[in-house]
Amino acid sequence: MASHGFWSFGTENGGNNSSQSPSTPRAWCQAAQKFTGGLGSKLCALLSVGEGEKTTDSTTKQQGATLETCECSKPCNCSKTNVDFSVLYSTDLLPATDGDLATITFLQEIVDILLAYIVKTFDRSTKVIDFHYPNELLQTNNWELSDEPETLDDILLNCRATLKYAIKTGHPRYFNQLSTGLDMVGLAADWLTSTANTNMFTYEIAPVFVLLEYVTLKKMREIIGWPEGNGDGIFSPGGAISNMYAMLVARFKMFPEVKEKGMSAVPRLVAFTSEHSHFSIKKGAAALGIGTDSVILIKVDERGKMIPSDLERRIVEAKQKGFVPFFVSATAGTTVYGAFDPLIAIADICRKHKVWMHVDGAWGGSLLMSRKHRWKLNGVERANSVTWNPHKMMSVPLQCSALLVREEGLMQRCNQMHACYLFQQDKHYDLSYDTGDKALQCGRHVDIFKLWLMWRAKGTVGFEAQIDKCLELSEYLYNKIKNRDGYEMVFDGKPQHTNVCFWYLPPGLRYVEDKEERMRRLHKVAPVIKARMMEYGTTMVSYQPQGEKVNFFRMVISNPAATFDDIDFLIEEIERLGQDL
Amino acid sequence: MASHGFWSFGTENGGNNSSQSPSTPRAWCQAAQKFTGGLGSKLCALLSVGEGEKTTDSTTKQQGATLETCECSKPCNCSKTNVDFSVLYSTDLLPATDGDLATITFLQEIVDILLAYIVKTFDRSTKVIDFHYPNELLQTNNWELSDEPETLDDILLNCRATLKYAIKTGHPRYFNQLSTGLDMVGLAADWLTSTANTNMFTYEIAPVFVLLEYVTLKKMREIIGWPEGNGDGIFSPGGAISNMYAMLVARFKMFPEVKEKGMSAVPRLVAFTSEHSHFSIKKGAAALGIGTDSVILIKVDERGKMIPSDLERRIVEAKQKGFVPFFVSATAGTTVYGAFDPLIAIADICRKHKVWMHVDGAWGGSLLMSRKHRWKLNGVERANSVTWNPHKMMSVPLQCSALLVREEGLMQRCNQMHACYLFQQDKHYDLSYDTGDKALQCGRHVDIFKLWLMWRAKGTVGFEAQIDKCLELSEYLYNKIKNRDGYEMVFDGKPQHTNVCFWYLPPGLRYVEDKEERMRRLHKVAPVIKARMMEYGTTMVSYQPQGEKVNFFRMVISNPAATFDDIDFLIEEIERLGQDL
Repeated sequence: MASHGFWSFGTENGGNNSSQSPSTPRAWCQAAQKFTGGLGSKLCALLSVGEGEKTTDSTTKQQGATLETCECSKPCNCSKTNVDFSVLYSTDLLPATDGDLATITFLQEIVDILLAYIVKTFDRSTKVIDFHYPNELLQTNNWELSDEPETLDDILLNCRATLKYAIKTGHPRYFNQLSTGLDMVGLAADWLTSTANTNMFTYEIAPVFVLLEYVTLKKMREIIGWPEGNGDGIFSPGGAISNMYAMLVARFKMFPEVKEKGMSAVPRLVAFTSEHSHFSIKKGAAALGIGTDSVILIKVDERGKMIPSDLERRIVEAKQKGFVPFFVSATAGTTVYGAFDPLIAIADICRKHKVWMHVDGAWGGSLLMSRKHRWKLNGVERANSVTWNPHKMMSVPLQCSALLVREEGLMQRCNQMHACYLFQQDKHYDLSYDTGDKALQCGRHVDIFKLWLMWRAKGTVGFEAQIDKCLELSEYLYNKIKNRDGYEMVFDGKPQHTNVCFWYLPPGLRYVEDKEERMRRLHKVAPVIKARMMEYGTTMVSYQPQGEKVNFFRMVISNPAATFDDIDFLIEEIERLGQDL
Repeated sequence: MASHGFWSFGTENGGNNSSQSPSTPRAWCQAAQKFTGGLGSKLCALLSVGEGEKTTDSTTKQQGATLETCECSKPCNCSKTNVDFSVLYSTDLLPATDGDLATITFLQEIVDILLAYIVKTFDRSTKVIDFHYPNELLQTNNWELSDEPETLDDILLNCRATLKYAIKTGHPRYFNQLSTGLDMVGLAADWLTSTANTNMFTYEIAPVFVLLEYVTLKKMREIIGWPEGNGDGIFSPGGAISNMYAMLVARFKMFPEVKEKGMSAVPRLVAFTSEHSHFSIKKGAAALGIGTDSVILIKVDERGKMIPSDLERRIVEAKQKGFVPFFVSATAGTTVYGAFDPLIAIADICRKHKVWMHVDGAWGGSLLMSRKHRWKLNGVERANSVTWNPHKMMSVPLQCSALLVREEGLMQRCNQMHACYLFQQDKHYDLSYDTGDKALQCGRHVDIFKLWLMWRAKGTVGFEAQIDKCLELSEYLYNKIKNRDGYEMVFDGKPQHTNVCFWYLPPGLRYVEDKEERMRRLHKVAPVIKARMMEYGTTMVSYQPQGEKVNFFRMVISNPAATFDDIDFLIEEIERLGQDL
């Protein structure tokens, strides 16, 4: 093992070849003075022997770093670092001179708080949420910002309070969102990312992360099925922005002059996506100056899949009106039903009409990692661009969303502005690694390391296993409730993704004959059960209406911590909380 | 004081009271295992005893996680957690049954690696960067992704390798970007944020963070000077996106129909910003379908400040052509010169011509925290929107950028799409806290906690002190070089922000009479010195050309760890590395 090399030893053998250790921290500290390079001081600092004590004549310390005998019940003679944070402030931490001890101890305290939280997260006997209404929460704690600093002790208290009221999104019974779970390697990687605290715009300041993004995007493109993984891509701050990027690049591909001249120089553009697609397509169209009226919503079948014949009909219709179809966004894994649009049929239509084909696989893209389930995305390799959010089905910590683009160089041409203070052309390294100018952002957070490190730790097979497991759980849920008293499925058939959509009818509602009254009352069931779930803090699952359909539960599973028992628990809990309704 | 708690002692009292010290670092490390709270690991880390060495005998372990008697040579009888990561995989961590021990030990190993990195970051005897060219770096390590998993030991190695080649952006001699520094409370907060791993879109899943965003944005608006802190705002993924939001909201305010109908329904819009403004204004205009040709660049004076009379002239001219001026972006702290546009004069013009006034204070907005320097932004309270990036001058870890908007509700109306699966109207709490629909993003990373916790820890006065200190350092640099042999300032006068722009002329270039040759040679000086800085790894500072001006150094200081000595060092280093050019 190579020495880390920043601290070196002076005299290696000071005439003492005993391997016995000193018995008190102070003795350790004194003995440590033989080391050069400030190491002695660092050891003393770690041992909580303050500056005053290091000299033989110790004076009373006024600062927070003091030494105490361990107070455990057994006579152990051991010492532990004991820093009194009630007299320390952030200014006592690094870069303060001799701030090492306070810093290490403070960060260790934080880590201890976090480790305790992590262990609790996976403990089914703890609540998913300790719910308080906004006004209540505002009053329970003082969250205000003031002119004067707080002590580090107060800061630790703030951290504890924040976690007390946090939702345990990694809890095995938290099913509320598409992004759930807390992956330990992903978390470790995110802590490292925070510590490295850099920015993706140039190789100069993020050499490793830029390379890892390159390696990972290539791998993702290979998995999509683009030849040799060629193409382009970027990690963006979420699926909505990834979808917006796709629309932006598609528009630029067809009308590059739009970059300089704006939408007034181009004909009326229209985009197509299914009526069950994610709202970010409309949001993107509004932002890009295309307008939501120019997003044509294509009909879906009873399972929520886009109907290709309706797509073609609407494209032809738009052309007849003189509009220019430029973008079709097929969804691979819709938000509510988890439906996969028929990509091959859509690809045929896009080719025929020369329209950019985007696949919004924010939710379903990860099924490409599964040999068992990737057929659901057959045809994705014919897309021009794909959104794929590892922070959803792959449990990578938020945020981690990729946009993959088949044509290389397009993003760069679409977005570059050649800022000369950042992308100097006379740098001493290969400038193709300065990828910042293809982004809409200037500074860009490092989202890649979590995904890369998790991938190394799990391998593709590890991601596959956890995805397959979640799908198995959802099938278990489906099988369990499809014929169960009091349940009605929102659509028939085995779920394609982990979305299971269903109504729960409390006993009192099951035999109400008046259809209107039944619907009116059923509409209120899910919100009440959900509110009770949050008040009890036992589990969380989402609900919503859709079109004519009154409020139903949308169960999703993306957390590999969940088990069959947790699914059983959910069902029992819904029945327990809803039986009186 | 609470115990650190995760490592405990078995039987104590080894009956050893020798005060002699071990003779080798390894013996020290072994002896140090008697300390609790991970202190032993930290001592070993400080002593550069590698992981392989710390466990003396790993051959007999079958399982990774075992509890062993400490094998140090002294009979201290304490036990320590000893986990052999070379036989463990990510699947052995939580949520694995009995995964607690492996998880805590693994995360603690990560933290020890990070703590060592943090201590080194502030140690001036370590390199800012261990530079390698892209191809070299690709070859030194295997960064590829494969099908099969790696052991946790390999994962720890990956983390060490990643940090080995990382830029120490918190190093007191790293001056390369506007975002520098590593704040310990900010870092702690970011670790907590990663652990909480949630999403800003609803109160339901981020109750505390949503409230903290509310509290903090209000405070920021108060500091801007808007009555009672009223208004709106959001934390976005960086200044470029914040500026794009401003442009989007300004357009919507003037022509709300653009949301549905797109740019084809509105007249030709034009925006104005100075020729020294940030490229994100043009990038935003390109994305929003306005077009870069519709961004009119206003002349600046010799200090880089927008000339108001030119702004007014160009607005009138645009109106005469039938265009509609809708947006003026004044810059408070330009990227290269650090110039502050004259906001009061610009506000007068905007009011007169009824144009939205945006202030891009991504870099300079933080000066509002300083009683000494906030006059430079006088007039900001008249703006309709302000970008302010705490991740720059306030040293909050990346990413942390706020857009503040004076008119409440506008962002919501501009961006909302009413997704019924997320923003259900029949929830049981006050829906005004579900702020997600005003964002362009759907999922949104929690960027607020770092800023909020740092603010609590420092108080406003703490931010003020560190900002004032950075400005003092830049004034010191300016005074030091303004009359020094071999230096020429790019513009005259004391810097307004921490930007100090200068040329360094190596001795051989100082008396070259031919102006053209001089310029040609001078243009090459900064890139060569910069390349050498990176190869030596001693410091990093940016350079660029601007307009007619050949490459010059742009020094910026945003890291409160920097001192007068570091400024002296930078100058000496430039001279050392550049004297032969």
